[in-house]
Amino acid sequence: MTTLTSLLDAHLDGSATIPQTIAACYARHRAHGDAAIFITLRPEAEVLAEAEALQAEGPRGRALWGIPVAVKDNIDVAGLPTTAACPAFAFTPAQDATVVARLRTAGAIVIGKTNLDQFATGLNGSRSPYGVPRNALRADLVPGGSSSGSASAVAAGIVPAALGTDTAGSGRVPAGLQNLVGLKPSLGLVSTAGVVPACRTLDCVSVFALTVEDAWAVLSVAAGPDAGDPWSHALPLGRRGAVPPKLRIAVPRPEDLDVAGDAAAAASFAAAVERAKALGAEIVPLDMAPFYETARLLYEGPWVAERYLTIRDLLAKDPEAILPVIRQVIAGRPLPDAAETFAARYRVAELALVAKAAMKGIDALMVPTAPRPVTLAEMAADPVGANSLLGRYTNFVNLLDLCALAIPASLSADGTAAGVTLIAPAGHDAVLAGIGQALHAAAGLPLGAIGLPHPAATPAPVRAAPDAIEIAVVGAHLSGMPLNRELTDRGGSFLRATTTTADYRLFALPGGPPARPGLIRVGAGGAAIALEVWSLPPEGFGRFVAGIPSPLSIGTLALADGTSVKGFLCETIATEGARDVTTFGGWRAFVAAQAKVG
Amino acid sequence: MTTLTSLLDAHLDGSATIPQTIAACYARHRAHGDAAIFITLRPEAEVLAEAEALQAEGPRGRALWGIPVAVKDNIDVAGLPTTAACPAFAFTPAQDATVVARLRTAGAIVIGKTNLDQFATGLNGSRSPYGVPRNALRADLVPGGSSSGSASAVAAGIVPAALGTDTAGSGRVPAGLQNLVGLKPSLGLVSTAGVVPACRTLDCVSVFALTVEDAWAVLSVAAGPDAGDPWSHALPLGRRGAVPPKLRIAVPRPEDLDVAGDAAAAASFAAAVERAKALGAEIVPLDMAPFYETARLLYEGPWVAERYLTIRDLLAKDPEAILPVIRQVIAGRPLPDAAETFAARYRVAELALVAKAAMKGIDALMVPTAPRPVTLAEMAADPVGANSLLGRYTNFVNLLDLCALAIPASLSADGTAAGVTLIAPAGHDAVLAGIGQALHAAAGLPLGAIGLPHPAATPAPVRAAPDAIEIAVVGAHLSGMPLNRELTDRGGSFLRATTTTADYRLFALPGGPPARPGLIRVGAGGAAIALEVWSLPPEGFGRFVAGIPSPLSIGTLALADGTSVKGFLCETIATEGARDVTTFGGWRAFVAAQAKVG
Repeated sequence: MTTLTSLLDAHLDGSATIPQTIAACYARHRAHGDAAIFITLRPEAEVLAEAEALQAEGPRGRALWGIPVAVKDNIDVAGLPTTAACPAFAFTPAQDATVVARLRTAGAIVIGKTNLDQFATGLNGSRSPYGVPRNALRADLVPGGSSSGSASAVAAGIVPAALGTDTAGSGRVPAGLQNLVGLKPSLGLVSTAGVVPACRTLDCVSVFALTVEDAWAVLSVAAGPDAGDPWSHALPLGRRGAVPPKLRIAVPRPEDLDVAGDAAAAASFAAAVERAKALGAEIVPLDMAPFYETARLLYEGPWVAERYLTIRDLLAKDPEAILPVIRQVIAGRPLPDAAETFAARYRVAELALVAKAAMKGIDALMVPTAPRPVTLAEMAADPVGANSLLGRYTNFVNLLDLCALAIPASLSADGTAAGVTLIAPAGHDAVLAGIGQALHAAAGLPLGAIGLPHPAATPAPVRAAPDAIEIAVVGAHLSGMPLNRELTDRGGSFLRATTTTADYRLFALPGGPPARPGLIRVGAGGAAIALEVWSLPPEGFGRFVAGIPSPLSIGTLALADGTSVKGFLCETIATEGARDVTTFGGWRAFVAAQAKVG
Repeated sequence: MTTLTSLLDAHLDGSATIPQTIAACYARHRAHGDAAIFITLRPEAEVLAEAEALQAEGPRGRALWGIPVAVKDNIDVAGLPTTAACPAFAFTPAQDATVVARLRTAGAIVIGKTNLDQFATGLNGSRSPYGVPRNALRADLVPGGSSSGSASAVAAGIVPAALGTDTAGSGRVPAGLQNLVGLKPSLGLVSTAGVVPACRTLDCVSVFALTVEDAWAVLSVAAGPDAGDPWSHALPLGRRGAVPPKLRIAVPRPEDLDVAGDAAAAASFAAAVERAKALGAEIVPLDMAPFYETARLLYEGPWVAERYLTIRDLLAKDPEAILPVIRQVIAGRPLPDAAETFAARYRVAELALVAKAAMKGIDALMVPTAPRPVTLAEMAADPVGANSLLGRYTNFVNLLDLCALAIPASLSADGTAAGVTLIAPAGHDAVLAGIGQALHAAAGLPLGAIGLPHPAATPAPVRAAPDAIEIAVVGAHLSGMPLNRELTDRGGSFLRATTTTADYRLFALPGGPPARPGLIRVGAGGAAIALEVWSLPPEGFGRFVAGIPSPLSIGTLALADGTSVKGFLCETIATEGARDVTTFGGWRAFVAAQAKVG
């Protein structure tokens, strides 16, 4: 198996057929020899028939045409049992979960339902009556959970992408332990209708893939409001961008960094920090106290009651049908009362304010995905404690309404993987994807457990997302210039550097600070002037334009790259008597020359 | 006392001074003779000194310059005790609540803290150890609560506006019973920092006033995100608009309309429906079941635990300090557990989906503010049942994240007031204000209990709302011109017609249709060019600017009315060879002249 992106290319260019892809899936599954990955694997013949039908239909523009996917067995797929890894709980839904329906509409083929920690309660993958999916890299380590089977299926190369769920880290920890990308979207971005709830107010559907590009391709299909899901929001997905020009990445303060005494894990994280620096990131140490306090509330606070609601009936009727460790975690303590429940919610709301303030001006918080790997033996010896260790850096994310992206960071010769997770406020999924893609590529690791090299970095798309507006800046708004924050504070992201067509002249206007140029289109006698194109959301663009002072205006610039975008112009009257700086070729060069002169 | 708006005008035009206004407040308070309205009334001399200082400072553009207001005694005012109508609970805050600070910054003068149902738990106004504020219209009726004192203070003409709070209807029911406007904003629109919580997740600060215009003036100052309040949202306030052109108003289906057997109340509501029809409204009967089911959850569900958290310590230490009826309501039953708490939250989320779907395509749901008035005697006889009756149409609003506006509907000769409440989804406050102003004016009622006639509809302010952006259009976007819809489709509203300063020239650009002018600032040799200023929300403005083609741009125009706004300019190069039409004085005149020629 290869990446989703190259598989789709192969389907489109005819170098592989969808039935061939499906046959390869099943062959790889047989060769891998792990019967614990799937709770339900569809019969190969049935899936091949579906593949042939899809092949016959042609792509029809479908973004996942013929892509085989695996679905965690707490997400409904019509006609297949949903077990949540509890046979007594199983039912067979007539309808796909919204997210599954969206993937199928986009041409994906569900080959089966994957194993998980029962009721998605766990981060290790050993809490299932259906066996423990093998960590595809090192069989003595836990696969990670609760989305264990989905992660192992991708790491082993059976499918290029799989759906998991993530309430406390179930979409990230298995990615970290199996050298995968695990994308945990903002709450409400992907519908949870048709998903067996863990904590309904915190649950997210997540994506496992070999690369960020692949995970984003799945998210792009999966995301979007669902009128039938009370927890669904209309959040803009945004567009997977490039690394922001003035990247700021927060990391835990040294005293807050917990690798559970594992020197290799510490070195892995330190190396990831160095790679972030090499990408141009400023590293900002962060006090993790509000995050860690939030994390404790997830299992010590009232949210366990949400899990209890899912198993309540079964627990009353047939408690032995539920694994002892799950009973212990969910029903081992008396439930708090409503007052304690609200008090905890208030506390989280306060902590979210503190966290928001702490993350202001930061593009992403980077943490280890897990402190260190955990062995199956350790897990057996301490089923709750070893599991809790794995959630060190994940438990707080959903409670604080943050999005997260786990990416591989290192892979040792013995197959020990370590990952890092990028975390940002809700709605910043696209920002994380841009940074994560670059950081993952920079790590130079083979993919999953299949030894495939990381694909050459695909150039980040240089045009703005469909709903965003491109704006060309030529002066004090350029990256690193005094007014650049007016773009970034309004949700701006850098798209590309280019020049105007050779029809413009640039003037240094009187006044300031900050000093500002004025751009005029003159046609003949003009020159190409350097500029940057940024993307702004419509509201941010509106506020930005509203703040631009006379004599500057926003008109339409013709660019050397053939595009035509909104950008800064100047009233001609204001350039009378101003210094013509056209020969510098751009404002940055002029300012640099002035600095030397000064 | 008169309306806030006319009082402000009087301060600005000098026909009244702020000290005169304050003296009139206190005189009116003495004349009214109700010692139960205020729990704390500031000494007149102290307030007069503040008034003199404000008068000396001058208006400085302050929207509430010298306006006396009363503040419900569960909202902090620095230096005055906050009692929540429970002497044993009282404390003296060092800081104003955020909302009070905003009103003061805008020039308002707080004259005192008003009585309320203890801990804002009640809808009738009789649950206070500080006495029962008199219903200013009919002394045998309850004043309504919990914001009883604030409502009585406005109805009696002591202050033109007062702050209340609203969790279950406390900002609406007293308005309905005392012939007032009660504005219950969207959750999170006004900060609740510095407010004694009832249900922290549902509490709103509300506004009582004599007219919708006055209530909106206070809301405009009070609204806006508060970084220190976890429950504050960044919601656009919008602009109090006109009645939507295709007005659709939902009302309870006949079988869902509950007036508790009161024929006068039924007739009052029917008359309000007729007035809505006369405004052009289509009336849509609505199934109220999801709303009423939600209402029951407010007191039967876990949200009572939020109230319990506020009194928990006092209840443990000194239970007798709390009124028996409050103890009964808040602590009379065991608290539900965390699972029941989450289950109720899920149910409300589902009901909110149903309600949202039911209200799709509807501008407002109109209900009676209360089924019927309740006498003090009835309240004494059945303190819980009679109170519950008053919440029939209010309890569901905050749980479903709706905004509401209570307006007067009728006033019988014996002083019995009845109101209606307009309800819409969160963020639609401005829509309700537009409809409510028209409906209230149509009722032709005197104001409050002071007999003043409803003021003639004042012209809409000509400047854009604080968050909106003004844009000057000079050509095809003018009213009635071919591209005007590009403004109206993006939420644009007309503000004013004026001209540029005499510094511009106007050219008829080649191309089209539509034909377009190009405006250039030339300084000497220019003329005043006619234009219209429109208001656009930031996002609409952004999209509008993004769609403007070369060679037009949006810069800054200097206008004859002294303002300076964003507006259309043209690249000078594009006017070379174009016809100079400056002498027409504007595009409309030029086009008209062309039509005659044609």
